[in-house]
Amino acid sequence: MFVVFEGIEGSGKSTQVRLLAEWLAAHGVPHRRVREPGGTPVGEEIRRLILDGDDLPARAELFLALAARAVHVDEVLAPALAAGEVVVADRYELSTFAYQGYGRGLPLEEVRRMNALATGGLSPDVTLLLEVPVAVGEARRREAGRDTDRIEGAGHAFHARVAEAYALLAETEPRVERVDATADPARVHAEVLRRLNARFPETFPLHTG
Amino acid sequence: MFVVFEGIEGSGKSTQVRLLAEWLAAHGVPHRRVREPGGTPVGEEIRRLILDGDDLPARAELFLALAARAVHVDEVLAPALAAGEVVVADRYELSTFAYQGYGRGLPLEEVRRMNALATGGLSPDVTLLLEVPVAVGEARRREAGRDTDRIEGAGHAFHARVAEAYALLAETEPRVERVDATADPARVHAEVLRRLNARFPETFPLHTG
Repeated sequence: MFVVFEGIEGSGKSTQVRLLAEWLAAHGVPHRRVREPGGTPVGEEIRRLILDGDDLPARAELFLALAARAVHVDEVLAPALAAGEVVVADRYELSTFAYQGYGRGLPLEEVRRMNALATGGLSPDVTLLLEVPVAVGEARRREAGRDTDRIEGAGHAFHARVAEAYALLAETEPRVERVDATADPARVHAEVLRRLNARFPETFPLHTG
Repeated sequence: MFVVFEGIEGSGKSTQVRLLAEWLAAHGVPHRRVREPGGTPVGEEIRRLILDGDDLPARAELFLALAARAVHVDEVLAPALAAGEVVVADRYELSTFAYQGYGRGLPLEEVRRMNALATGGLSPDVTLLLEVPVAVGEARRREAGRDTDRIEGAGHAFHARVAEAYALLAETEPRVERVDATADPARVHAEVLRRLNARFPETFPLHTG
């Protein structure tokens, strides 16, 4: 079972990943929390290159993200899934389509083809798209006093394009659940569980939640 | 003018790059020596990831090489060529086709398409393929007492496949000169100059050489 959270910066992905992982732990379900890019030593180095690199060309950002994904799939995701764990991921292929495809204007069909090479065809069982207005995401990041990395600092127009891309992708990609993420984290978590229960009632039984 | 040296490890690329750069310096020709992967700070970091990374999947190696190439093209190659410099490169796209395509068995057409995205269509004016038998390349590396990196340590069968790939690519790729590189460096350099003179007599006049 491969569950992915997606959404713009400030949409609450890492909080929801944590809440779901805590829920799985409380219910004794073997699971693994992962994030992209990153998740392996080489992946974390690539993450740093992507987030810190000044003036990194868009296509270099794409190639680096796909390199990290290929390593992540082989070293972490595929083995964990083969071992029967529930994998809860902070970002996966939808991020690549939204940020590098729509956001940076790289040709989407080519991005998809390259991503398929990177993943070897490993797709999520469900992608939870956490939706908040771009202004809300920006306000949350400011309130949290987070340092702004290169992607986060790309500007309102860029993030608006990414948010729109996510909404478009939700219509065309399989197994995407759009979740209103403007509410407080506990309510969003409850909604996430409701969606997961509707799709996979055995893994996510609600009466014990 | 974009001149690229290619060949298996131990074929003498870095020596020939140096000799040609010295020739250009002696003749007052503005030029730039570069190597791939590498050539920029982020490129050197990627080079290290590629050469040191244990068990890096073949497709991750490819994505990393292409990321480094995209940065290299934008930050170094295109500006140098636009400024009228002769660029002398140790490896470029033929390495990707030979090592990651033929050598690692990735689909060649896909590798070409991705490479075209990385280069933005920037191709060499001439590629000098330095050819030595695989055993000669291996012996030279042993004699030089060089540390063996991950690619160099990939084994005889791998390097034989790469050498064969280079020979095949020389027949299908445009503007490739096959140069017998078993002779001593000075003779190979003279042959390199002869080939360059035949193609570009104004940039590489032989009477002054």
